[in-house]
Amino acid sequence: MSDKAYALFEEQQQARGIDLGWVKQQLSKLKIETPSWGYGDSGTRFKVFQKTGVPRNPFEKFEDAAQVHKYTGLAPSVAIHIPWDKVDDYGKLRSHAEGLGLAIGAVNPNLFQEEEYELGSVTNADAAIRRKATDHLLECVDIAKATGSRELSLWFADGTNYPGQGDIRQRKAWMQEALTEMYKAMTPEMRMLIEYKFFEPAFYHTDLADWGMAYNLAQKLGPQAEVLVDTGHHAQGTNIEHIVAYLIDEQRLGGFHFNSRKYADDDLIVGSVNPYELFLIFYQIIGAGLDQDAGVRRTVEDIAYMIDQSHNIEQKIPAMIRSVLNVQTQYAKALLINHEEVAEAQRRADVLGAEDAVRKAFEFDVTPLLHALREEQGLPLDPMKAYLDTSYGKDILVRGKGGASW
Amino acid sequence: MSDKAYALFEEQQQARGIDLGWVKQQLSKLKIETPSWGYGDSGTRFKVFQKTGVPRNPFEKFEDAAQVHKYTGLAPSVAIHIPWDKVDDYGKLRSHAEGLGLAIGAVNPNLFQEEEYELGSVTNADAAIRRKATDHLLECVDIAKATGSRELSLWFADGTNYPGQGDIRQRKAWMQEALTEMYKAMTPEMRMLIEYKFFEPAFYHTDLADWGMAYNLAQKLGPQAEVLVDTGHHAQGTNIEHIVAYLIDEQRLGGFHFNSRKYADDDLIVGSVNPYELFLIFYQIIGAGLDQDAGVRRTVEDIAYMIDQSHNIEQKIPAMIRSVLNVQTQYAKALLINHEEVAEAQRRADVLGAEDAVRKAFEFDVTPLLHALREEQGLPLDPMKAYLDTSYGKDILVRGKGGASW
Amino acid sequence: MSDKAYALFEEQQQARGIDLGWVKQQLSKLKIETPSWGYGDSGTRFKVFQKTGVPRNPFEKFEDAAQVHKYTGLAPSVAIHIPWDKVDDYGKLRSHAEGLGLAIGAVNPNLFQEEEYELGSVTNADAAIRRKATDHLLECVDIAKATGSRELSLWFADGTNYPGQGDIRQRKAWMQEALTEMYKAMTPEMRMLIEYKFFEPAFYHTDLADWGMAYNLAQKLGPQAEVLVDTGHHAQGTNIEHIVAYLIDEQRLGGFHFNSRKYADDDLIVGSVNPYELFLIFYQIIGAGLDQDAGVRRTVEDIAYMIDQSHNIEQKIPAMIRSVLNVQTQYAKALLINHEEVAEAQRRADVLGAEDAVRKAFEFDVTPLLHALREEQGLPLDPMKAYLDTSYGKDILVRGKGGASW
Amino acid sequence: MSDKAYALFEEQQQARGIDLGWVKQQLSKLKIETPSWGYGDSGTRFKVFQKTGVPRNPFEKFEDAAQVHKYTGLAPSVAIHIPWDKVDDYGKLRSHAEGLGLAIGAVNPNLFQEEEYELGSVTNADAAIRRKATDHLLECVDIAKATGSRELSLWFADGTNYPGQGDIRQRKAWMQEALTEMYKAMTPEMRMLIEYKFFEPAFYHTDLADWGMAYNLAQKLGPQAEVLVDTGHHAQGTNIEHIVAYLIDEQRLGGFHFNSRKYADDDLIVGSVNPYELFLIFYQIIGAGLDQDAGVRRTVEDIAYMIDQSHNIEQKIPAMIRSVLNVQTQYAKALLINHEEVAEAQRRADVLGAEDAVRKAFEFDVTPLLHALREEQGLPLDPMKAYLDTSYGKDILVRGKGGASW
Repeated sequence: MSDKAYALFEEQQQARGIDLGWVKQQLSKLKIETPSWGYGDSGTRFKVFQKTGVPRNPFEKFEDAAQVHKYTGLAPSVAIHIPWDKVDDYGKLRSHAEGLGLAIGAVNPNLFQEEEYELGSVTNADAAIRRKATDHLLECVDIAKATGSRELSLWFADGTNYPGQGDIRQRKAWMQEALTEMYKAMTPEMRMLIEYKFFEPAFYHTDLADWGMAYNLAQKLGPQAEVLVDTGHHAQGTNIEHIVAYLIDEQRLGGFHFNSRKYADDDLIVGSVNPYELFLIFYQIIGAGLDQDAGVRRTVEDIAYMIDQSHNIEQKIPAMIRSVLNVQTQYAKALLINHEEVAEAQRRADVLGAEDAVRKAFEFDVTPLLHALREEQGLPLDPMKAYLDTSYGKDILVRGKGGASW
Repeated sequence: MSDKAYALFEEQQQARGIDLGWVKQQLSKLKIETPSWGYGDSGTRFKVFQKTGVPRNPFEKFEDAAQVHKYTGLAPSVAIHIPWDKVDDYGKLRSHAEGLGLAIGAVNPNLFQEEEYELGSVTNADAAIRRKATDHLLECVDIAKATGSRELSLWFADGTNYPGQGDIRQRKAWMQEALTEMYKAMTPEMRMLIEYKFFEPAFYHTDLADWGMAYNLAQKLGPQAEVLVDTGHHAQGTNIEHIVAYLIDEQRLGGFHFNSRKYADDDLIVGSVNPYELFLIFYQIIGAGLDQDAGVRRTVEDIAYMIDQSHNIEQKIPAMIRSVLNVQTQYAKALLINHEEVAEAQRRADVLGAEDAVRKAFEFDVTPLLHALREEQGLPLDPMKAYLDTSYGKDILVRGKGGASW
Repeated sequence: MSDKAYALFEEQQQARGIDLGWVKQQLSKLKIETPSWGYGDSGTRFKVFQKTGVPRNPFEKFEDAAQVHKYTGLAPSVAIHIPWDKVDDYGKLRSHAEGLGLAIGAVNPNLFQEEEYELGSVTNADAAIRRKATDHLLECVDIAKATGSRELSLWFADGTNYPGQGDIRQRKAWMQEALTEMYKAMTPEMRMLIEYKFFEPAFYHTDLADWGMAYNLAQKLGPQAEVLVDTGHHAQGTNIEHIVAYLIDEQRLGGFHFNSRKYADDDLIVGSVNPYELFLIFYQIIGAGLDQDAGVRRTVEDIAYMIDQSHNIEQKIPAMIRSVLNVQTQYAKALLINHEEVAEAQRRADVLGAEDAVRKAFEFDVTPLLHALREEQGLPLDPMKAYLDTSYGKDILVRGKGGASW
Repeated sequence: MSDKAYALFEEQQQARGIDLGWVKQQLSKLKIETPSWGYGDSGTRFKVFQKTGVPRNPFEKFEDAAQVHKYTGLAPSVAIHIPWDKVDDYGKLRSHAEGLGLAIGAVNPNLFQEEEYELGSVTNADAAIRRKATDHLLECVDIAKATGSRELSLWFADGTNYPGQGDIRQRKAWMQEALTEMYKAMTPEMRMLIEYKFFEPAFYHTDLADWGMAYNLAQKLGPQAEVLVDTGHHAQGTNIEHIVAYLIDEQRLGGFHFNSRKYADDDLIVGSVNPYELFLIFYQIIGAGLDQDAGVRRTVEDIAYMIDQSHNIEQKIPAMIRSVLNVQTQYAKALLINHEEVAEAQRRADVLGAEDAVRKAFEFDVTPLLHALREEQGLPLDPMKAYLDTSYGKDILVRGKGGASW
């Protein structure tokens, strides 16, 4: 059935002027980084439910991550979180990863779980705490050197819960001060990805609250600083793909933390709440990449796609497989947009025609395409089934409960 | 200065036709229940910062709560949470409370922290888990009998994170089934307060998601079931005072969980984000109470005012003192509304006049009034200062860190 | 290609245990009512852009609506709005409609465009204005008798802009009073559909603000009163399919006003912002219909599907064709859910499996199915293209500008 | 009573270390610009209710505005909107204004009410329409020269309703192109104030959607371009005072459009929904002004405070009086914050102390202060009453209905 389906699909897309060779080439370049902490226990403030079989150390996290890549071919690198993934010998961790066919991806400092950081880390009113926090940032640069990581991915919980609690402008200056110091410590190959967040855990003001604050800071720091868009870190209704297009146009889109949300920063599986939004994000990225301007294309190709989710109730490895597959699916659909058709409708002020030209790509079933791609890549047609058919999920139960949590 | 200020205030209010005798009488009847868990450590999913001096057991929680009542005269009862406040001998806890001048208030079952409840408690697809959850509800009725509590305050974390995860209609039936069993176990003096919540920890659907679902369920159960309004449990923009007025009119407003939020269920100190909203809630309650209809008056007088907050970064006891004082302040302001003036403006279609008649009560400084009231009640004029001037806060530091948390 | 595609689709669905005969039967019963006002000019408070060719009277609106039905087979009835569609002889309008193969659908009173209604219609503090408003409701019952309409669809702009402007509880009573009078005037065949709205044009409180208020009122009125869900009338984040499932379970879901929104009540084309949400609404409806309980099935079959949108910048007739096609597409996808597969995953607490069982139905391309259906029904395979290939759109340009607006 | 009240107030504030002389000096410098269109009819998309007595031309608008200034002393300038306030002879309008004691304030181009602008003005895909729009911007620069206006206040309705409708990056470039041309046409005394808006009338994407986009554009244009913050143009929950502090710190806060909202861009009377938010905005502004850095002070002093509201159901002149009084009230309260007390609490990590130091200023009744100020300025103590006691409101009824609307 698969061959027939692909033949039909090909016929259909050719009739629309879509070059499936190019589509498959693009798809084969898609790389999605999974986070080490996504394999551990996580939860809400009410409860962290403990799963049996959760990895007990960074090495086991990479082993689990390798399963995701093995069946999907999509997830060749793993982001680490310091100190959660602190090890004595990063060379050993790197070898372990490489032995599993993985690279160590972005290094993520943690500046929210030490008692001192109760009222802020790099924006704390206490200079000693700011020093400690900045030193941790510098430590992470060193770790990135040891792991061969090119990305330093920064999220700050810093903010306040009440009016008056902190001096907003002073904290802004402190943030810039700390990141300037870190920026200078980076090697030329490194990039600093600056994440922003609307709220939580700060409930009055968050020092880096929106893309504008992250962008402005990146601009001040220099060309190696870019903005990281977490799809769950916006106010309700925010048009994320607009921000994406904007940042690409300014050559400052560094990457994504993908996840889904219906309410706040729910950190659900990407593509599970509003898959069309994910499709529309890729529509903007692909459109920008098609532009002649070489600079834009570079930016687009350097976008780091990363998962950042909390699998509170899901089985961790299958949840990650589902996540990268959902991203692949929506990327594949977005690659079926005929941009010339859209542009023509725009030129003739045909609102419905332009909308249709975008939406109809979303309505195709890309299963035949993905099956063909996987066949070419020697991957199982149904990666989830392939994983579930193995005993890996059962084998790791010996790890017991109480493994890593974030 | 205080006397002069009150004399001036009295003159001013008399000129407006406000009977300060009645106002003080109403104020002296204000009782705000504080929650035992508000004295323990709490936090966000990212971190629970541990405070030194946090109570180590239910008895110490009541001791801390007694401080709040001692200086404010506003907080004569304390809500308990089972199993967090589980003790071998509830008679002993009750005596302890009474010895401190306190009563044990609402009993709150906990149906979200056992491993079994990962996918729901009373709405879990597994009948054995539903049974366990319902048994806990019945246990709480028994505890209420032992503690002399009249309120059973129910909040359920039950819900789903993904479409398809649960059968929404089936879960609705299971919820009703469990509460029907609990309802039957209650004594005629008891009330069931049913809380609803927009989201969190469930991120797709919450079984009791809004006032309508709680209200409809209460109606099915019978007259001893009422709705509990947590001020942080609504979608952005929701007009909470409208819901309050509506529920009073239907004689189903059982009580409040007071707190503040700017974003989601931030659980900040009540009155710290939008104090005017708290004032407007009291405007509706007072207005309903002034109605001739005896039934409405009864409902209004039975409203249980309770604090439910997370003092993640605040000193616990001062945070609670601030909370009850904020409630008192806004209640006092709302008592200064001249309802006849409002009604007249409404009758002559004077939008600005009606708005002004409400808002101007908010703009009065009620400090002279509250000072006079406290003087009459033998309380310190500045309860916060009075508490902070004692050594209580320092004395409890011997408890160390790692006390109760929720 | 179409035949091959359907053969493949059939093979695929049979393998999943889906009975396409049943699916097509369900699809062939789908009826979506379009609103007469959707063919006229509409806009925002900033500007109503005037389209050339907009209908100049109710008769022309039906002619345009007939085009939508002609090519889609989905829209056999048209809702009317009084007084926008007031005519001297409703029998003549009915004959005109029937001559076009259409029925007159729901009658919608208008209680927001007379100068007297500035501060409310049925909840106005002025008894004479309330009387006028109630009389209009009664007039609409009479019109429904004349047109053969079975639905009276009620939306009230009533509410206030400022605290104090109106007496919330009193207005609640007035609302009930007016609707009680109207309810009594209805014939046994009629249904009253009560719509609610979060906000706009009232910006402080809206008298019927949410489903709970509409539902509670319907319950008081009697079995012929039901709730109408407008998909754009909720707070951000609201789980609409939950409300839908809830109302079906209470046998009070009367119907829908379909449209899309990203922000407020944007009234965009249904299915254009988050098509997955529309699919999930149908998932709940279909699931309820599959239940054994005959009562539930009846409720589900009586749900009135209606479009209510503002085509501010779109060509009116194509916008309506797109709208009903989008509804059909998502309904078709939802019919492909294997409910037994979902239920089994729920029973074994397989969160990811259950989610997948729902979502994967969404990912099918239902074009082969819809083509097959249209072929059987003698309809053009591509209704939009079929319409655009005619000269109708050009022919109506003779009507000029300045036609009907709402 | 007024003298006694002020004496008491003075005593109280002196005890807190507040210099009332400085406070009054600051208050006496407060200037709030009212908009000409705020005196005309406005409404929602559902209905514009027509008031009797609404001005029929720009000259009458200035006469009404003069009433607001006469009784409050707060509103010495009036913003104009082109073409709504287009006149043959701007010198004559300026003389008329000056004769009334008013200045002509910001010039506001209108780029949303011509039929050509249906799909955008300066970002329209049609070059001829972009040219027309840009020419209008240049015309407004010329008008500003004629009226002596220093501010050009730009709001664009430009955006799209559907994905694909427009090329987001291309439109961004067109926006910059048009504003660059306008910027070059300005005289050195002029400032361009760039407004942003979350949504409406565009419902998918708005070309200038948030402060970040406006700020980035202003930076590219040059030092005479600044950001205008409309308090109703943000997503729910947005911390506006944070944005204000941020923009001041970057020396790019040009001014405000004040109004209130509970839901979307409701355009209600400023200070009527959450007065504390307005107070907190002033807290940030005053705090920045107290900084030693001369540059910051300059920015703060140049902030243009402007009202931008829709008085849909209110009497226009009283609504404007209420608006400027509300701003004055919250500004007065914010001037009572003891910033050193706040800073000390911040330094000792006293969250509750810092919060209290801010909030308690809000709880003072500033009526005695404002009465004293008005007495010194020769203004009526109660400006609203003073206006309502005149016959002006009745006298203008001869203008009839159907005057200016926006």
